[in-house]
This record gives sequence, C-alpha cells and structure tokens, in this order.
Amino acid sequence: MEFLGPNYLIGNQTGLALYEIIKDLPIIDAHNHADVKAIWENLNFADIWQAEAATDHYVWECLRKRGVPEELLTGNRSSEDKWLAFAQVFDELAGNPTYEWIHLDLKRVLGIDELICAENAKLIWDKAKAALARPELRQQQMLQGMKVEVMCSTDDPIDSLEYHKKLAEAGCPVRVLPTFRPDKAMNIFKPDWKDYITKFEACVGSTFASVGDLVAALQDRHDYFAECGCVASDHGVEVPFAFDVEEEDADEIFQKAYAGHELEEDEIVLFMSFLLNEVAEMDAEKGWVFQLHIGAVRDVRDSLFDSIGADTGGDISDHMTEIVTPLRDLLNRFDDRLNVVLYNLNPIHTGTLAQLTRAFGAKVNLGLAWWLNDSPIGMKRQLEYVGSVDVLMNMAGMVSDSRKVPSYGSRHEMFRRVLADVVGEMVERGQMPLHLAERLVRSLAYDRPKQLFGL
Amino acid sequence: MEFLGPNYLIGNQTGLALYEIIKDLPIIDAHNHADVKAIWENLNFADIWQAEAATDHYVWECLRKRGVPEELLTGNRSSEDKWLAFAQVFDELAGNPTYEWIHLDLKRVLGIDELICAENAKLIWDKAKAALARPELRQQQMLQGMKVEVMCSTDDPIDSLEYHKKLAEAGCPVRVLPTFRPDKAMNIFKPDWKDYITKFEACVGSTFASVGDLVAALQDRHDYFAECGCVASDHGVEVPFAFDVEEEDADEIFQKAYAGHELEEDEIVLFMSFLLNEVAEMDAEKGWVFQLHIGAVRDVRDSLFDSIGADTGGDISDHMTEIVTPLRDLLNRFDDRLNVVLYNLNPIHTGTLAQLTRAFGAKVNLGLAWWLNDSPIGMKRQLEYVGSVDVLMNMAGMVSDSRKVPSYGSRHEMFRRVLADVVGEMVERGQMPLHLAERLVRSLAYDRPKQLFGL
Amino acid sequence: MEFLGPNYLIGNQTGLALYEIIKDLPIIDAHNHADVKAIWENLNFADIWQAEAATDHYVWECLRKRGVPEELLTGNRSSEDKWLAFAQVFDELAGNPTYEWIHLDLKRVLGIDELICAENAKLIWDKAKAALARPELRQQQMLQGMKVEVMCSTDDPIDSLEYHKKLAEAGCPVRVLPTFRPDKAMNIFKPDWKDYITKFEACVGSTFASVGDLVAALQDRHDYFAECGCVASDHGVEVPFAFDVEEEDADEIFQKAYAGHELEEDEIVLFMSFLLNEVAEMDAEKGWVFQLHIGAVRDVRDSLFDSIGADTGGDISDHMTEIVTPLRDLLNRFDDRLNVVLYNLNPIHTGTLAQLTRAFGAKVNLGLAWWLNDSPIGMKRQLEYVGSVDVLMNMAGMVSDSRKVPSYGSRHEMFRRVLADVVGEMVERGQMPLHLAERLVRSLAYDRPKQLFGL
Repeated sequence: MEFLGPNYLIGNQTGLALYEIIKDLPIIDAHNHADVKAIWENLNFADIWQAEAATDHYVWECLRKRGVPEELLTGNRSSEDKWLAFAQVFDELAGNPTYEWIHLDLKRVLGIDELICAENAKLIWDKAKAALARPELRQQQMLQGMKVEVMCSTDDPIDSLEYHKKLAEAGCPVRVLPTFRPDKAMNIFKPDWKDYITKFEACVGSTFASVGDLVAALQDRHDYFAECGCVASDHGVEVPFAFDVEEEDADEIFQKAYAGHELEEDEIVLFMSFLLNEVAEMDAEKGWVFQLHIGAVRDVRDSLFDSIGADTGGDISDHMTEIVTPLRDLLNRFDDRLNVVLYNLNPIHTGTLAQLTRAFGAKVNLGLAWWLNDSPIGMKRQLEYVGSVDVLMNMAGMVSDSRKVPSYGSRHEMFRRVLADVVGEMVERGQMPLHLAERLVRSLAYDRPKQLFGL
Repeated sequence: MEFLGPNYLIGNQTGLALYEIIKDLPIIDAHNHADVKAIWENLNFADIWQAEAATDHYVWECLRKRGVPEELLTGNRSSEDKWLAFAQVFDELAGNPTYEWIHLDLKRVLGIDELICAENAKLIWDKAKAALARPELRQQQMLQGMKVEVMCSTDDPIDSLEYHKKLAEAGCPVRVLPTFRPDKAMNIFKPDWKDYITKFEACVGSTFASVGDLVAALQDRHDYFAECGCVASDHGVEVPFAFDVEEEDADEIFQKAYAGHELEEDEIVLFMSFLLNEVAEMDAEKGWVFQLHIGAVRDVRDSLFDSIGADTGGDISDHMTEIVTPLRDLLNRFDDRLNVVLYNLNPIHTGTLAQLTRAFGAKVNLGLAWWLNDSPIGMKRQLEYVGSVDVLMNMAGMVSDSRKVPSYGSRHEMFRRVLADVVGEMVERGQMPLHLAERLVRSLAYDRPKQLFGL
Repeated sequence: MEFLGPNYLIGNQTGLALYEIIKDLPIIDAHNHADVKAIWENLNFADIWQAEAATDHYVWECLRKRGVPEELLTGNRSSEDKWLAFAQVFDELAGNPTYEWIHLDLKRVLGIDELICAENAKLIWDKAKAALARPELRQQQMLQGMKVEVMCSTDDPIDSLEYHKKLAEAGCPVRVLPTFRPDKAMNIFKPDWKDYITKFEACVGSTFASVGDLVAALQDRHDYFAECGCVASDHGVEVPFAFDVEEEDADEIFQKAYAGHELEEDEIVLFMSFLLNEVAEMDAEKGWVFQLHIGAVRDVRDSLFDSIGADTGGDISDHMTEIVTPLRDLLNRFDDRLNVVLYNLNPIHTGTLAQLTRAFGAKVNLGLAWWLNDSPIGMKRQLEYVGSVDVLMNMAGMVSDSRKVPSYGSRHEMFRRVLADVVGEMVERGQMPLHLAERLVRSLAYDRPKQLFGL
C-alpha cells in the first residue's frame, strides 16, 4: 500500500505478472497536443511549473477547485509563486488522478520522491530546477527516456508542419508525426470561421468560390500531411454530425456563411456532416485512421472563455449527447473501407459506443476512455465493460492526449497498470487462460496501436 | 484461477457455498429463440459449427471483428471451413463472454476440455463430431441433460404452433411453451407490414375492415396460444410506446396504412401504443406475463441488413432511448392487474428501470440484463445496483435469450455464478444474513421465474 | 461476515482504520425532512411502526413490492397490525438498504439485536415498545444520542418556523435550522399554484400585483429565515431550469397564471428559471448555500397520487433529464459568488454533474448520491468516480434526507463506512498516502459540511 509503489493500481497477483511483461515496452502515442516547435528547439524546462502546469489546463481546473486565484494559474505571477501556491493546496487534490500523475512524473522522470506539499514546496522547486537543467532532460531526451517511439501531435490543415519536417530530417529518434484536425474548417457556427477560411485561402493561394474549392484545398493539405508522415485525421466534435448530404446543399450553406449571413441550426448540421464525410473519404483513400473525439461541450464556463480563451478548463461532457442517429450514415457509407476510432468522454456513452463498434465490424474500433474519463476508475470501468460487448483485441490502445512532455510515461504507465489489473482479474476469475491474457496486454500496450495506425 | 474452473466468476467463499446450492437446480427459461421444429425432429447436430455458430449472430459479430469474411460466416462455405476459420481467430476473442460460453458448452455438454485455437481446430472438430453423434446429444436429450424443465420460445401470432403441440402430445419431458410476440402486427412503419397483415387475414380467414378486426384476430390467436400452453407475451421495442390512445384514432391510422399510404411519425407512435395496450389487456385477463424487451435499435449496419437480412448482427442500443414518458400511461392503466417484466439492454437504463419497477409495486418487475448486457460484468453491475433500489426477490430471474440448444446450460450457469458472487459479496460485507442469501439465490435461480410465469 | 458486524461495508484493512477515526464524530445533516414540531414536543414514539415506518414512504414502497396492501401501510389499521405485516415480508427485502437501515436503527438506537422476521415480530414489537418508552429515547434525546450537532429541516417560505424558534430559545443542544424551499412558488404548472400564492399573500399581508411583488415577498421571508438561523435554500426540480430571463417577461407569465389562464410549456420554463435565479441572488447576497436536488420525476404512479397524495412512493428519476443546457446560465451568472451544491438521483447523471462542478471552480460542488441513489453501492460508485474528475475534498458531505428521527445515525454510519471503504481502497492501491486519506475522510464526514454551510 505504498503510494505509487510496485503494486500501484494492481489488486491481484496475475495483474502484477502481466504488468511486468508490458511495463518496459516502447510507447506509441497516437493522439496528444505536443508543442512540436518546442520539441524541435529541445530546450530544458526552466522550472517545475513550466514542466508540469504551465500548459496543462487539467491542472488549473483542479487548483481552481481549491481556491487558487487566476493570477497564480494563468496570470503574470512568477513560476515560483505559482508553484508555491500549487504546493500549498496539492494535498487536497488526493483522490484526483492529477495527484498521481504529477507525483509519477516527479518520481519517474525527475527522480524526486518527496510528496508535494506546503512543507516540501521549496525543496522540490530546487531539486526539480537542478534536475530539469540536466542534458538528459531536454525535451527530446526526456521523450527518449520514457521510450516514446512514435507520437502524433494535433495539427490544423494550414499548419506548415515545419518542425515535424525538421525533426524528421534531423533523424530525431522519437518520431513526431502530424495529425490532420480540420475542426476550424468544420465549425461554421463559430464567429471566427470566416477569418479562418480567409487564412486557408491564403495558405493554398486561391479563393474558395464554392464548398468544392474548400474540399479541394483540404485535399491539398491532406496530401501534404501525408508527405509529412501523417497517418490519421482527428475530429473534436460535440455531436458527431455525419449525415449523408449532397454537395449542392452543402454549397448553398457555404455560400451563405461565406457571404456573412447567419445560418440556421440545421444548416450547420448539414454543412458539418458534409465536410466530415469528405475528410473520411480522403482518409479512406489513403488508409488513414479516422478518429472521432465525441462529446466535448466546450467553453461552458463563460468567465474562463471571456478572460483566458478556449481550452482553459471550461469544457465538460453531457449525458444527453446524441451519437447513434447522427453517426450511422457515415459508418454505413464507409462500411469496411475506413479505419475508425471512436473515443468517449462521458462514461454514460460506453455502452452505446461499444455496441456500435461491435456492430460495424473489424474496422470500427473503440479508443480508450478519454480526457476526463481516462482516470484509473474511468479506464477500468471502460475496459471491464467493453470486453463484454465488443472485442478487447480491437481496441485502439492508449493515447495520452497529453499537453506536456513529462507526462507521456505516466499516462501510459497508468493505463498499463489498469489494463494489467483488469485482465489479471479476468484470469483470476477463470474467464481467460493466462497465455491469452499475456498476448492481450502486450497487444493493447504496444502492438495494436502500432499496427492500427501503421506505425 | 483455472479457466472455467470451480471458482469461475466467484470471488468470495460465501459465493462458492451459495453456488453449490443452486448449481444443479433445473432450468426455467422464460425467453429464448428456440427452433421448436428442430427440437421436435430431435436430430443430432451434424457438427460443431452447426451446434455452436450456424444460428447465433452473436458469434458472427465477434468473428467479423477479427476479420472473418462473410462467406465463412453466413456464406456457402462448408461447416468445416467455417469452423477452421472460427478456430483461427478464437484466441483473439478472449475477454468477450462468447469465449467463455462456447468453451463452457464444449466442456459441460460435449465433454471437450481443449481450448479452441488454430492448433486444436481439427482435433476439436473431430471430437465434437463424434460426441454430437451420440444419442444422448440429440436435441431433446441435450436439453434434458442440462436439466431444462421449461423453456418458452418466441412465436408469431400466426404461427401454427404445430411442433409445440407435437412435443406436448409426445410427452417430451422438457416442456417447450410458445410465447405470443406480435411485433410484426405492431410494426406499422415497416415496408412489409401490409404483407404481414394479409398473411394474418389468411390465417384467421377474414379480412380486417378496421383495427378492431385486427385486435379481434389477435385475441383469437391469443386464445389459441393459451390452449397451447402459452403464459406470456413478449415485445421487442426500441421505444416502449404505450400512450393511451382511443380506438377511433388508431382505426384512422390503420385504415390509412391498410390503404397503402405513408404514415407520419406520430401516427406510428399512436398505432403502436394502441396495439400494445390491447395485447396488455389480453394478458391481464389471462394472468399472463407481459414482457418488454426495451431499447434495441435494429439493423443499424446497412450492409448486413441488405445482404443477409434482419437479426444478423446489426443491432445495438442507444443511451438516448426514451422510456419513462412513453411507458407510464400503460403502467398506470394496468396498475396492479398485469404482471410486467422489463428487460434492459443498455446498462445506462438500469437506474431508470429499477426505479420504475420499484414505484409500480408488486406486479411490475425487472428482468435480468439482456442480450449485449447479459455478460458477467453486465449482470453483475445490474444485480449490484438493482437490489439497492428495487427488491432483488422481485426480479424475474434469468432468461437465456438463446439461439442454439447447447447454450441453455452455459447461460444459466453464468448467471447463477454471477448471482452467487454478488449475493455472497453482500453477505461478506455484512449486508445480509447467510440464511436469507441462500433463500434469495435459490429463488432467483429457480422458484421465482417458476412462480411468476406460472410454470 | 457478521450481519452489520464491525466490518460492515468495509472490505479492506485501511478502510477499517479510517472508519475508526470518523465513526464517533458528531453529525452535521444539512438536508432532511424533520418534523420540527414533533422534535419540539419531544414525545416518545408510541411504537416501532411509528418510529420506523409511519412517516417513511421509502419503506412503504419496498413493502408494496412484496404485496403488502395499502391498508397495512397508509391505511387505518393499527400500528401493531402494520408492524406484523411488515415483519412478515421483511426477510424478502434483504439486499435493499432498507433491510440494513432499519436493522441498524434497532441495533444502535433501540439496542435490539434480533433479526426482523415473522417469528420475531411480536418479540421485537414488545422490546421496541419498552425501549421507546425510555426517557433517553424521546426525540431530542434520541438525536443527542446519535450525536446530531446540527440538522437542517426543509421548510416552505410561508412556514412560521415557530418550532425552530422555540427549540433555539429553549437551548436545545441539537441545533435544528430551517431551509428555505420555495418549490411551491416556483411550480406555476401545478393546479394548486394560485391557491398557494393566495396563502403567500396572506402570510405577508399584501396582494401581488406583479412578479416583482412575489419576489419581494420571497425576499421578506428569506430575511426572516435568516433571522431564524437558516443557511441554505433548497430546490427540488425535475429539470434545473435556470435560463436568464428578463423580469418583464416573467411578469407577463405571472399575470397570465395569476388571472387563471393556462400556460404554455415554454412559459413555465421561463417563469421557473426567473424565480430560481432570484432566489439564487438572495442566497448569494447572504452567503447561503444554494442546493439543487435534480431529476425527481414526481407522482409517476397515478394510483398512489390519486388515493394518498404526493410523496407516497410514486417518484422516480429518468436518464433523459436535461441538466447542462438549462443550468449553465445560472452557473455563469453567479460564477464565483454563490455556493452551489448539486445532488444527483440517477447514477447516470454522475459523469455530467461531476464535470460540471469541476468546471465551475471552488464554489460549485457536488452533493452525495441522493435518495434512491444513497445506498451502499450508489454512494460507492459515486465516490469512486467523482474523485477521478472533480476533487473529493470539495464534496458537500453526507445529508440524510431523512424522514424519521431514528435514522440519522444509521444514514451517516452507512455513508461513513462507504467513505472509509472507498478511500481505504485507494490507499491500498497506492493512489493516496495514508495521512491524506485520514484528512479526507475526516473532512467529508464532518469538517467540510460544517465549513461549507457555515455551521
């Protein structure tokens, strides 16, 4: 019962043995929010706040719950002040996976075993500063130390991918691949959609006279992403609108929005559906993986959005999100010719999604519990249930969704431990022979994502 | 931790003791999809594919997930080829209950202890062929060997029930009773509804000038089913539409559909509601059990429906299915005068359904987790939660929903083990005295369904 | 594995140690349905039926499931007859928390260790009669014996609070505070709304010419409740309608209803939203806690409502209840200036609610699983999941929601045991150091509600 000790998250002997098999396997991380420029620059992190909290709104949210004011989270105060405020309340986060993740990072990456708390705040600040200055903890070396073999960042179609190319040319031993995420082109309901389209026109050097032109431009960039090693698209959608829509109908809506007119709700749905199907078509042709991150209701807390912007902690999920009705057209249209991965955020959607992936055969697969659901209990409950409906061997494996370099290893360690625990428990309950359990955990920890994403 | 060993699915000592009490009780199976003609003919199964997979789309779905092509599932290839393809990927299904069910069938019914895998494929094929040829594994004898006391098949109102009668007349020791399932008469939204009505007219030898005539014809058949030993109706509904509707309104809709005109969405709802209430009235008068299988969204995967038809693996459930609003009228109308069993498919509906059955008193009861939800974890989570809201003693007991003869024993064994495990755990946590736990498991395993269905 | 023995509900050694720390802490109970007049009168309970079942529709519902007729529940039969009928079927409730709660009450409050069953019915009747007659089991002394420090009843704005005041003046060692629950003023859709408004006008001595007058009258009573020690408002809502609405729009609807005209669905939503925001404003100004009990679909079973009335057992929850959309306006409007507690009834809403409370910072908190969800498994599943998304330290602590005096101790004991079990398990899995677990359980069992509600 040692905190983060050898038995961490594993409640049975078989699980401990299974974990031994997978704990040192390299990491394939098919979805994260890496800052590729920073990885290319390969600097040392300045301090523990910069390494652990400056880019991670998941951490900010937890600290806000304990009353830490915005100036000590996203404001102008010094990293050291912020770290001291962080340490002041960190005790109170016990039970939230953030408490575990950050201690894991300290232990595994920085070699710091002390508990974060008010008393140890300064000590850890100093120790971390010394550790982070070491050459083996520059960003690329840190990733190598965690055995990251491939990682896929999240990129806008108009990104130049300059740093992905530089890393590849320099032969960086950690392969950093782009992912094609055209959310901004899809999100025609947003006030800044037209501005984005203008940027897109500039990027491809033409103006879009029709939705066909936009699709052609997306295709251009899709091809370019492929040249840069991309193997997947990704879509962050609240509702996965993917109805069958005629190009001519989509074009009418495009023209209306392009001219600055407001759209009706159902026009938005049709346009988003059309574009999602078009990108799925591009993916199908190239054999890419089409990833849907379903159910994030974004920017629910106005005060955060208004003062700090998107992706700062005001996102949730809603049990009332429609999935089956909007998504079935696309799954049928691309039946057996598109690799799909569906990720779920609200545990309430697990049953529906697992049954949907089961019904659509070998190419439609479930991703691991995601974001606010990728905690030990979230992943455990998902794995326990999914296997009973769908086939565990088909799952897409862990993705870290990480927003900071030191966390890749911890995220995957947590997943691997939960996986070993759940599968070990199944063996101990007589539901599976041991040799198949060994094969299963090895596959989900490494082989399966490597094969599915063609890495 | 032996695979399917004595402790299979039971994680506590009390549970093991409870299982000893119930493991050899006869089986009452109030809902399945038995091929009654085949039971009457009482042939031996030709081979292991015919026995285990030829009629079970649950198996096909799992094999599709591992890339087995349709020709080796539902196509024209030989049983042996299909079995070899099955065995080739079977290892990869570990974790899905199919892996456990089929091995249980082999072990308990055929006496084959080998694991199904590529290496053992031919060996098991041969062993099974030999075993299945034995007289004690003819269908009736197989059912007797599994101690099936009563089983209720699923039958259309216009079925002749010829084989139910023959079995009864021949004094078959396994009682095989029909169940009245008028889905086809209800499903007025289906393109083949009118064809079905024409067949119904032929069956009763009159034409239907009004919805009243259809109801009278259903009543005719309901009476006939009663003569043949039927004790329950069953309804496979996506949404349990059961609003109070006037006959005159239902008749208008009936006339419109009968004349070949397309219906509005709300007309469909009203017609289905009307007919469901009418059948409930017939059930109430006879003291039958009115069973609702709620939430199956059928034929979601077009390619399966188009090429192979209904009931081939394209069915799912949806967390967004309405239950309370459409169902409350009926529950109130028949308050305390109709035995109702509600079955739930999506674990998400458990809370709602358990509270609904709790609220409506002694005659409205919950069935066990069903279909894609009757796995070890599905049943376990349901039993754990339901008892805390509703009363476990009121549950309707296990139904196999089986589509093949060798599986009755395995399905009920799995349920009984889960039941023993859950109740045993409650005893070990001090929530229940042992003698009541013994009574509870015995009741849910045998006494309760026998009493509820009047068997 | 002794029934209700020392290890009751606690499956790990650390949990047992944690329970030792909290088991004797005083009880803070911020929400219940106490009969304050009866507490003031401080009589002895006449018999075990009066003490345990006469005021508790949760018990009636369970007995109805086992066929006990209404005359022996809510009818005119004697308490002894009712108790004997109760004891006759009580065995069959094993597995439902009612079986545990009532035995806990007998054991801890009355000192009766026998199991309730047909054989012991008369013995327990007699023993309980003797015990309940003792001076230390008068209502106030019973509450003291259970270490109730503060308890907050549920009161209508027009209640005189006469008995709260008398208890305070008499220096009752158990502080009994009122809670401001203006549901009747909100529920403009109910047939008796206008009658209630007339009573409200009488209470404040003026007629309401506008919705502003109603708000002013509510403010009057809000102030009066504050004088009487009130620290919170509470709202029992099916859907938490809380959209931003202009007073002028609300007034138009108020006028229409006041004049006796029927309202449209959306008018009801707007009116209820307006009033909820107004009360939230009053709470924010006084620093009260604004409690929302979300998702009760009331009076679903007509036969109960028609013959016995509201709050008799026909209430359920529905997985299809909207929460995010109707509630977000209010959460944003009062961002960081209103203490909010959200209670959830259907386990299906846990994910959504925990993410919502996480997103809205330090002042928006989750309450414990409530009513049909505050069973051992309901509370356990909630605690396990909530910590992984939100911060456990922010939870509002246990409220008994109790409808009878002897149950306060049992309700809180059950919660404390579940809390110790869940947190102990986290320690044993290496997710939390022991000293923080000790702090966490102590806080949720006592310190946190005391601080949050300012008690």
